[in-house]
Amino acid sequence: MSQERELTVKKLYLKLTNNSLEDGKEVVLSGWIRSNRDNGSVGFIAFNDGSNFKDIQLVYTKETKNYETIRTFRYGSTIKVFGLVKLTPENKQPFEIQLTDAILLNDYAEDCPLQKKRQSFEFLRDIAYLRPRTNTFNAVFRVRNVLAYVIHKYFQENGFMYVHTPIITSNDAEGAGQVFHVASDLKKPNEFFNSSACLTVSGQLHVEAFALAFRDVYTFGPTFRAENSNTTRHASEFWMIEPEIAFADLEDDMNLMESFLKYIINYVLENCKDEMEFFNTFIDKTLFDKLHNVLNTPFKRVTYTEGIELLKEAVKNGKKFDYNNIEWGMDLQSEHERYLTEEVVKGPMFLTDFPKEIKAFYMKQNSDGKTVAACDLLVPGVGEICGGSQREENYEVLKAKMEQLGNEKGLEWYLNLRKYGGCIHSGFGLGFDRLIMYITGISNIRDTQPYPRTPGSLRY
Amino acid sequence: MSQERELTVKKLYLKLTNNSLEDGKEVVLSGWIRSNRDNGSVGFIAFNDGSNFKDIQLVYTKETKNYETIRTFRYGSTIKVFGLVKLTPENKQPFEIQLTDAILLNDYAEDCPLQKKRQSFEFLRDIAYLRPRTNTFNAVFRVRNVLAYVIHKYFQENGFMYVHTPIITSNDAEGAGQVFHVASDLKKPNEFFNSSACLTVSGQLHVEAFALAFRDVYTFGPTFRAENSNTTRHASEFWMIEPEIAFADLEDDMNLMESFLKYIINYVLENCKDEMEFFNTFIDKTLFDKLHNVLNTPFKRVTYTEGIELLKEAVKNGKKFDYNNIEWGMDLQSEHERYLTEEVVKGPMFLTDFPKEIKAFYMKQNSDGKTVAACDLLVPGVGEICGGSQREENYEVLKAKMEQLGNEKGLEWYLNLRKYGGCIHSGFGLGFDRLIMYITGISNIRDTQPYPRTPGSLRY
Repeated sequence: MSQERELTVKKLYLKLTNNSLEDGKEVVLSGWIRSNRDNGSVGFIAFNDGSNFKDIQLVYTKETKNYETIRTFRYGSTIKVFGLVKLTPENKQPFEIQLTDAILLNDYAEDCPLQKKRQSFEFLRDIAYLRPRTNTFNAVFRVRNVLAYVIHKYFQENGFMYVHTPIITSNDAEGAGQVFHVASDLKKPNEFFNSSACLTVSGQLHVEAFALAFRDVYTFGPTFRAENSNTTRHASEFWMIEPEIAFADLEDDMNLMESFLKYIINYVLENCKDEMEFFNTFIDKTLFDKLHNVLNTPFKRVTYTEGIELLKEAVKNGKKFDYNNIEWGMDLQSEHERYLTEEVVKGPMFLTDFPKEIKAFYMKQNSDGKTVAACDLLVPGVGEICGGSQREENYEVLKAKMEQLGNEKGLEWYLNLRKYGGCIHSGFGLGFDRLIMYITGISNIRDTQPYPRTPGSLRY
Repeated sequence: MSQERELTVKKLYLKLTNNSLEDGKEVVLSGWIRSNRDNGSVGFIAFNDGSNFKDIQLVYTKETKNYETIRTFRYGSTIKVFGLVKLTPENKQPFEIQLTDAILLNDYAEDCPLQKKRQSFEFLRDIAYLRPRTNTFNAVFRVRNVLAYVIHKYFQENGFMYVHTPIITSNDAEGAGQVFHVASDLKKPNEFFNSSACLTVSGQLHVEAFALAFRDVYTFGPTFRAENSNTTRHASEFWMIEPEIAFADLEDDMNLMESFLKYIINYVLENCKDEMEFFNTFIDKTLFDKLHNVLNTPFKRVTYTEGIELLKEAVKNGKKFDYNNIEWGMDLQSEHERYLTEEVVKGPMFLTDFPKEIKAFYMKQNSDGKTVAACDLLVPGVGEICGGSQREENYEVLKAKMEQLGNEKGLEWYLNLRKYGGCIHSGFGLGFDRLIMYITGISNIRDTQPYPRTPGSLRY
């Protein structure tokens, strides 16, 4: 086999790009049939081996060995083909393979639920183990792959250390929503670990300890919420990116968010050209405009207090929100966020310095005593895409807050980080699957994950 | 702050390497004290900001502002320093910083359990949130970071697609050991997902479906075992690397394992020079020899049947194993594996084609009807380091096997992959944390993980 492992559809396209694809070159390929049609004297197979988003075209004629058999090969079947490269620079497809022979490796059973016809995303969700073979999901998972890699690439090239924060934890971090419990024996849930155990909702607290040893760190792994939310934006299991930077304040944090987001979006546009073209054509025709707007605009910075003034002004001038009673201290709704980023700023913006009552306990209290050094990044078309904050580094202030909330138990170590060589530090959290929704235009989080987990749904 | 974020200890060392570090250059750095000693007229601080494994030396004299205060700065405290670069090519340290001033940002409380003295690995395990600040753990987690990255790098550069296989699953994959159960409500464990749920023990079955869409894929994520094993090599939570390649047999699989392992070991040796030097000096003096042996030796391939003959021969010639009753069909013990790799082959080796009864149901049955196309990679010093196999692609053979085992229920989709455009494919699994043990010489898996989870132990 080893010889044959060398050649793939992707390598043929790479050779084409490098001008090293020779006309007449003999090739042997194994892969799958995306379509097969013939007019009685010449036939065309759209063929792919999974290595590339774009297919290649195989052409067979009566001179091809086994012509009559090849005609009968079905959609989805696995074949091995022998042929010659034919450069066709004048055509839409810049090259094709003229077959000398083809053999069937595995037939595609007729009872297969995935068929060559339009099938709804909803139906395809139910056959998650087959849908990566469709164009849309093939493109989604390719972008998911490239995006995961460039996230590591960005952080590694900028001196960040990757930390595997734990999945099974003894505390529920920010108290953010309901958690899943973990037990080796459901009847004795505390037996295995000698304590109750749950699935992590965030790696932030754990990774903060590493920022105080390595300066710039990040975690990128699965997190979980046991919320019974059946929306297009909620999944029970999803991946989170959480960088944490030491000797850095909110300003540094926002600079990082902006630089990071621009870098990864640009990388995906450059490295998934065919896939992004597909999304912009078939999924969301405003996609390129939206992404280029993010790439080319400096992110504005507006305080929450200014934002409230802008919203009040809008209401005074006749703007109608579903929730129209704007007042300082409220948690902004998505409609408010979208108004600010889409109609006022007309581009990406940070909303900063929120009332401390509506934000998490670990956020740095500002000197006004009322707000915390936190930011939400808002983008047109979505509203909030991620959020970050400077962390409270003052031991006494944090201790008082935790005592008030009653969450010190089990988090003494977290508090102690403030007195054992602490320093100012900041970080942010970005949901990976929602980022994929944003970058591809796919509107349901279930269609960005290989095997989505949501309430009532745990197939495969 | 943004200006100051620019300069780090790592950047100073990089400048040194590039010959762009200027004598007399003014610098401002923030970081931690690793040691502070003075003789009354001149003082030395070993300083690091976490960005680099090697510290830098700060020198202060009576001309330094705040000399008397600086003398009192304690181990672990956070400081901000101002000084001038002094190149010292004739010294062991090729440069130092001559301080003009230093200020204390955060003191190191005396009650901190981490102190500047020899503290046992066992004690340090108990303060997992502080131990990354010690030399050993600093080095371990740096290697962990580089290793995680080079794994992605290798696969990405070779056209593999990264797939996030699910953490919460409805089946226990290979039936390998006990699983953790997951529930939003422990009293109604099936309520949330409308089925029982557990933590994954392997992503292999899920990733196979993606190999049949993308050809070459891999998963790299956390996996779990609820085994009550208190050994130095078992953890309840650990990361696994599982590539899966389509149109590839066992031979291709072994070629991949050999190429992959050599690439990543070489990369770590090249990119973690200081850390690996540290391990070879303080943890395992045979480390470099062991790793270079793997790098420079082609991996031998020996069948299980040949292996049994070699072991029988050894016993006949007087070799004493704890388990001395060698016969075909037995599962080899670690002592047997180590004998073969250390004393017979004297280097890395694949043991192949095991009796089907002692291997997993999904492995490809060989034409002899008795063995399966599986391999274990054995290396001197450890024995088995990872294992792989060609997968059974024949629908009827696999169906019969699964019916015999009674594990078809819930895995119909996996079986169906064999009739919906199936193909020969292969893969392997490598425990990431054990790989770190092997590469660093660290002898307890608990000392390779940021926050280890083992029976009875779930701190933090």
